Amino acid sequence: MLLDAAREAAAEAVGCRADELVFTSSGTKAVHSGVAGVLAGRRRVGRHLMVSAVEHSSVLHAADVHEAGGGAVTQVPVDRAGAVSVQGFADALRADTALACLQSANHEVGTEQPVAEVAGVCREAGVPLLVDAAQSLGWGPVEGDWSVLTGSAHKWGGPSGVGLLVVRKGVRFAAQGPADERESGRAAGFENIPAIVAAAASLRAVRAEAAQEAVRLRELTERIRAQVPGLVPDVEVVGDPVRRLPGIVTFSCLYVDGETLLHELDRAGFSVSSGSSCTSSTLTPSHVLRAMGVLSEGNVRVSLPFGTAAEDVERFLEVLPGAVAGVREKLGAPTTETVVRDDVLVVDSLGKLCPIPVIELAKVIGDVPVGGLVRVIADDEAARLDIPAWCEMRGQEYVGEEPATEGTAYLVRRVS
Amino acid sequence: MLLDAAREAAAEAVGCRADELVFTSSGTKAVHSGVAGVLAGRRRVGRHLMVSAVEHSSVLHAADVHEAGGGAVTQVPVDRAGAVSVQGFADALRADTALACLQSANHEVGTEQPVAEVAGVCREAGVPLLVDAAQSLGWGPVEGDWSVLTGSAHKWGGPSGVGLLVVRKGVRFAAQGPADERESGRAAGFENIPAIVAAAASLRAVRAEAAQEAVRLRELTERIRAQVPGLVPDVEVVGDPVRRLPGIVTFSCLYVDGETLLHELDRAGFSVSSGSSCTSSTLTPSHVLRAMGVLSEGNVRVSLPFGTAAEDVERFLEVLPGAVAGVREKLGAPTTETVVRDDVLVVDSLGKLCPIPVIELAKVIGDVPVGGLVRVIADDEAARLDIPAWCEMRGQEYVGEEPATEGTAYLVRRVS
Repeated sequence: MLLDAAREAAAEAVGCRADELVFTSSGTKAVHSGVAGVLAGRRRVGRHLMVSAVEHSSVLHAADVHEAGGGAVTQVPVDRAGAVSVQGFADALRADTALACLQSANHEVGTEQPVAEVAGVCREAGVPLLVDAAQSLGWGPVEGDWSVLTGSAHKWGGPSGVGLLVVRKGVRFAAQGPADERESGRAAGFENIPAIVAAAASLRAVRAEAAQEAVRLRELTERIRAQVPGLVPDVEVVGDPVRRLPGIVTFSCLYVDGETLLHELDRAGFSVSSGSSCTSSTLTPSHVLRAMGVLSEGNVRVSLPFGTAAEDVERFLEVLPGAVAGVREKLGAPTTETVVRDDVLVVDSLGKLCPIPVIELAKVIGDVPVGGLVRVIADDEAARLDIPAWCEMRGQEYVGEEPATEGTAYLVRRVS
Repeated sequence: MLLDAAREAAAEAVGCRADELVFTSSGTKAVHSGVAGVLAGRRRVGRHLMVSAVEHSSVLHAADVHEAGGGAVTQVPVDRAGAVSVQGFADALRADTALACLQSANHEVGTEQPVAEVAGVCREAGVPLLVDAAQSLGWGPVEGDWSVLTGSAHKWGGPSGVGLLVVRKGVRFAAQGPADERESGRAAGFENIPAIVAAAASLRAVRAEAAQEAVRLRELTERIRAQVPGLVPDVEVVGDPVRRLPGIVTFSCLYVDGETLLHELDRAGFSVSSGSSCTSSTLTPSHVLRAMGVLSEGNVRVSLPFGTAAEDVERFLEVLPGAVAGVREKLGAPTTETVVRDDVLVVDSLGKLCPIPVIELAKVIGDVPVGGLVRVIADDEAARLDIPAWCEMRGQEYVGEEPATEGTAYLVRRVS
């Protein structure tokens, strides 16, 4: 009875029928089961899977498995704000598209996707749309005529260990892997009743205050967005300024190592994230920032949970400039060996990690005449993203890259 | 750090290295991932999977998936006490056996399996043995040279939503499905840290008292085993009388419907299980009791949790005879149409569910002379198990079954 009541409550919050919703052991599991189930159910249609380039890693990992098994995957690109275009999404639909996936909002930069419109073009094409609604479900139901939806209780302040998988009636779905009679055969194993009940209750509780709290948090994140560029030099605030989640704000600081800045802020009492928080143990730059084409170095994601005090935001804004300056000072003056060869100034940054190659580039750009070239040799992957981003921020011309004897050479022309 | 500490504590309790143990979202998930991972890792060796006939449904469901995908599965039979024989297990090993699975103890009847000996013959044959230790891990580590082990926290009194998967170093293992960098790539999704910490702490706590509590509970279950046959007529106590879990005792009552008896006992304040508790929503007879060849009707499993008071056991023994008698009275005197034809007394039990066919058989056996036959026509699956079991309990001869125009005819010869 508790399970039934929790299902009713969650379905009401999602805007679906109770028999369309099952509880899984996590949001990740909901995504994996949802993607695999639709792909198997629609195998006759084809094996083409579409995902946006900025989906959560759980969606991308499911896509990797599909590709490894011989399926085709298209990543739909996003604009500089992190959103797909409806037309771009529509253009990528194919006759053999079995499933399309689009998050309701991005987990790193907070940008909301045009889900309702994309659901419309997918419906027209007869392709089911799976919406990873992990980021937004606490704020409200997902609009539009989607087919499959996933969520994660700990994202709305509920307990860990509970995900939601909603499959609309009429969607062809063939659950994969061993099944039992629980949760319509879509989530095997004994249900975690206490956590499920808490998940449903907490969703109902946050929803009751969501509209009011969204306004308040939006003011606070807007304050951070507006203030940070003035308080900290060489900062890029990323993500859509309007179509965004209320409680997330993200910016990148030039010449800063994100992990070090995180530790500085942690010492000041602020727990923030950098890059892709969900895979922060890996050192590759965030796939989201890369897809957006924005600066990834010194990236900071500030998430304001329900009830965050305005004073805490003020104190964060007080602490941030010093923390960034401190990190920049530490990284400040690396020995740079530069050689001018064939009118090109060569910076050897081999073996140096982000943000050092960009710092070295910035230090020598004044040494070449306007029109002159700087050639940065680097083997850190982040340079591929951050050198063009630096050029855009500084109004210099990014000429391109070419293979070097070791690493890659990035060519920059001094414009001003 | 909490996760690391929990892993260390759990590994110590299991008797493995911390880096061999990952936390999953349930015991079921641990089994599914463990079976799939070894089968994939050893695919070159072959696609033969061995399981005992009395494994938990999670193991059998994993075997079903393997079989559906073209793999071969052998179910190793058990004796009347529910245990596999070491020789029987050894004989089923093949050159193409990729994996063998054997529970540490049975979840329905409490019988302990000869895991250490079976692990020995598997090791000799170079076949990894996966031990589903869900039932026994609270009582102590699994002895013997096993390769893979699974467990479930809520079984030892810990929280729901936490399983253990241990894969010994050197076992070929290829995790299946989408993975991320968590839990060695063997359990994707954000770790449920609070539940994992509670799981490890509770395992340590129950282990500290396990030896003492095992002795106490064993006395209580022994009391039930000894008393029930005297208090209730026509009862079969099932499972090994000696090699068994301390806290589980199971018996079957002739002429009783298990679900009705459960409700009677529930009204008296006792929550017991019937048949396979994990799939009690399905109406097929327990696969465990079927594999053991014992009576399945009126099946009751009594689980005594840690700390069960002796007085509660006494009160259960007071209540049980009346509850069974009440159910028998309710089912008591169904109208039986019997026809003697060709010296055979025919009982038409078509459309009647367990335990009615056996009740009808019992009522007419006295009507035929010694040496005469009773032919019971039934279409309830449980009859196939329960009519032979009744014959064994009553010392009558079970002749065999044959297809009837409708349903199946079961032939019984009156011996005494």
